[in-house]
Amino acid sequence: MSRVTSLTAVPSAADIQAAAERIAPYVSRTPVLKAPRFNHLANGDFYLKCEHLQMTGAFKARGAMNTVLVHKEEALENGVLTHSSGNHGAALSWAAAQIGAKAYVVMPSNAPKAKIASVEYYGGIVTFCEPTLEARETTAEQVRKNTGALLIHPYDNYNIIAGQATATYELLQEHPDLDQIFVPVGGGGLLAGAALANSYFGKAKVIGCEPTIANDAFKSFTSGTWTPAKSTDTIADGLKTSLGHKNFPIIQEHVDRITLLSEDEIQEGWHTCLETIKQFIEPSAGTGIAAAMREETPGKTGIILCGGNMDVRGFTLR
Amino acid sequence: MSRVTSLTAVPSAADIQAAAERIAPYVSRTPVLKAPRFNHLANGDFYLKCEHLQMTGAFKARGAMNTVLVHKEEALENGVLTHSSGNHGAALSWAAAQIGAKAYVVMPSNAPKAKIASVEYYGGIVTFCEPTLEARETTAEQVRKNTGALLIHPYDNYNIIAGQATATYELLQEHPDLDQIFVPVGGGGLLAGAALANSYFGKAKVIGCEPTIANDAFKSFTSGTWTPAKSTDTIADGLKTSLGHKNFPIIQEHVDRITLLSEDEIQEGWHTCLETIKQFIEPSAGTGIAAAMREETPGKTGIILCGGNMDVRGFTLR
Repeated sequence: MSRVTSLTAVPSAADIQAAAERIAPYVSRTPVLKAPRFNHLANGDFYLKCEHLQMTGAFKARGAMNTVLVHKEEALENGVLTHSSGNHGAALSWAAAQIGAKAYVVMPSNAPKAKIASVEYYGGIVTFCEPTLEARETTAEQVRKNTGALLIHPYDNYNIIAGQATATYELLQEHPDLDQIFVPVGGGGLLAGAALANSYFGKAKVIGCEPTIANDAFKSFTSGTWTPAKSTDTIADGLKTSLGHKNFPIIQEHVDRITLLSEDEIQEGWHTCLETIKQFIEPSAGTGIAAAMREETPGKTGIILCGGNMDVRGFTLR
Repeated sequence: MSRVTSLTAVPSAADIQAAAERIAPYVSRTPVLKAPRFNHLANGDFYLKCEHLQMTGAFKARGAMNTVLVHKEEALENGVLTHSSGNHGAALSWAAAQIGAKAYVVMPSNAPKAKIASVEYYGGIVTFCEPTLEARETTAEQVRKNTGALLIHPYDNYNIIAGQATATYELLQEHPDLDQIFVPVGGGGLLAGAALANSYFGKAKVIGCEPTIANDAFKSFTSGTWTPAKSTDTIADGLKTSLGHKNFPIIQEHVDRITLLSEDEIQEGWHTCLETIKQFIEPSAGTGIAAAMREETPGKTGIILCGGNMDVRGFTLR
C-alpha cells in the first residue's frame, strides 16, 4: 500500500473503500439484524445496522481508528488528544491503544463516572478541567503543548467522515437496494458518511434524524446557512452538538431531508427497540427507530443503530 | 417423513435432530454473539446463544412449535390450550398461528397488560380467571371441555423438552468444543434440553443457574428428591416454577451442578449484559451472565440468553 495521506477534501468512493480496508483488522463487521415484530409494528421491511455492537459500543470506533491509522507515525510519537467526553473519547482511546499509541482525553470534572471509567478502561489518559467549553479548550491546548499530541476532532474531519462512512458502506454491500436509510445526526460525522457512501454505492434516500429541541442541523439544512446549536437538554444526549463545517456541505448535497423527533417520540422509539428488537441502544439511536415508525417506508429501509452507551444503573428490577 | 408420534420417553439424539428439522421452517436460527468487553470483564471466552432474538422473544417458541407440529392434526381440529401466562402462552399462540390452529390461553385477571397484549398480538384467545392457581386450572379445564383443545404443559412434556434442546444443539453444532454451558432453570425445559443435547453432541459441563430465593431445583438436585418451589418474589420472574417431573431425572443425570444466584447478583448480571453485551435480556437471563461472572470458566463457555420479554415502560430516560 502506498503511503497514506490525510484527506483534505470530501472523501471519494476510493477513500471510503480504503478506510474500510484500513480499519477492517481492528473494528467489528457489525451484524445487520431483522426483527419481524418491529417490521409488523412499523409496517415496513427494516435492516438494522448494529453499531451499538461495534468496538467501544458506538460507530465512533470506525472514524477514530481510521484517523489514528492515517496519522500513525505522529500518533506513535506524541499520542492523540481530544476534549470530547462522549463516545469519541472512548473510541479514540481504544483506537490509539490498538497501535500502542497514547490517547489524552480532557474531561470536565463533573463528567458521569461511567464515561470516565469507559475512557480509562480503553487506556485513555484523563485530564480533568472545569465544566465549561472554554476550560476544555484551554486545557486541551495545554496538554497539546506539553505532549505534542495530535488533536483529533470528533466529527469535523474528513478522515473521521470517511471512517464513519464505512458503516453505511457495509450495510449497502449487503443490501445495495435499500430505498431509504435513517441516520441520527449530531455533529454530522455519521450522517455525512452515510450520505456519501450512499451516493457512491446505493440508491436510497438518506434521512437525518434529529431531536426537535436540538434542531440545528434541520435549521442549517433548510435555510442553507450553517446555524449553531443552542444549549438543550434532549434525552438524545449524543445529538446535542452543532453540525461540523466540513460535514454541513456534504449533508446539504447528499441528504434527502432532516426529520425532527419530539422527546416523547425518541423515548417511544427507545422503548420500542427494547421491546421488539431486543437490542440495547442509547437514546440517540432511538431517533432512527422513532422516525421509521412515523414515516412512510416503502420497499426496504435501513436504520443505523448508532450506539449503545448509557448509564443503566438507574434501571432497577424491583 | 414417516408419521410423527408424540414422545413418551426421554428424547434421543435422533428425536432432538428430528425436532430441529421439524421446527426449522418456523423458528429463527438465533445468532451466537461474542462480546470482547464482557470476555475481559468476566475473564473468559464466552459464546452467547441469543434466544431473546428467537420468535416471540424467548426459547419457548422452539418447544411450542415442536409440540404443535407433533400434534398437528389435533391442533388443527380443536386448537391448543395453556394456562401459562408467561412466555409459553405467547409462544404457544404464535406456534398455533403458524399452522392456522387456534390457541386458548387462560390468564389471571391481574396479569400485566404487556403479557396480555403479547398473547393477543400472536393470535391467542384469552380467557380471564381469578388470580389463583386453582382458578387457572379449573378455568382451563372448562375451556378444554368446551373446545376439545389439547392442553400443552409449558415444560413437563417430552416434546417440549426436545424442542428446547434444539437451542443447545445449534450452539454445539457451531461450537462442539464448549467446556461449560450456563443455563437458567425454572421448570427445567430449557435445562433438561440443554443437558440432553450436550450429552449427545457435546462434552461441556452443563450448569443450571437458579435464584437463591427460588432454589427448588438446587434442593431437588442435591437431595435427590423432587422438592416443590415455595412462593417467592425473585426478580427473575421466569424462574419461579417448580421443576417438572419429567425434567428432574434428566437434569439429575446429565447436569453437572446447579449454582445459586442472589438477587443482587442477578441484578448485576442484567446490568452487565446491557453495559457490555448491549443485548436486551429479561432478568431470568441475567442468572447465566451472573454465574459466568462469578465462576471459574476455563476454555470456552456457552451462555444461553433465554429471553428478552419484560415490561420496559418503567425505564424512563429522564
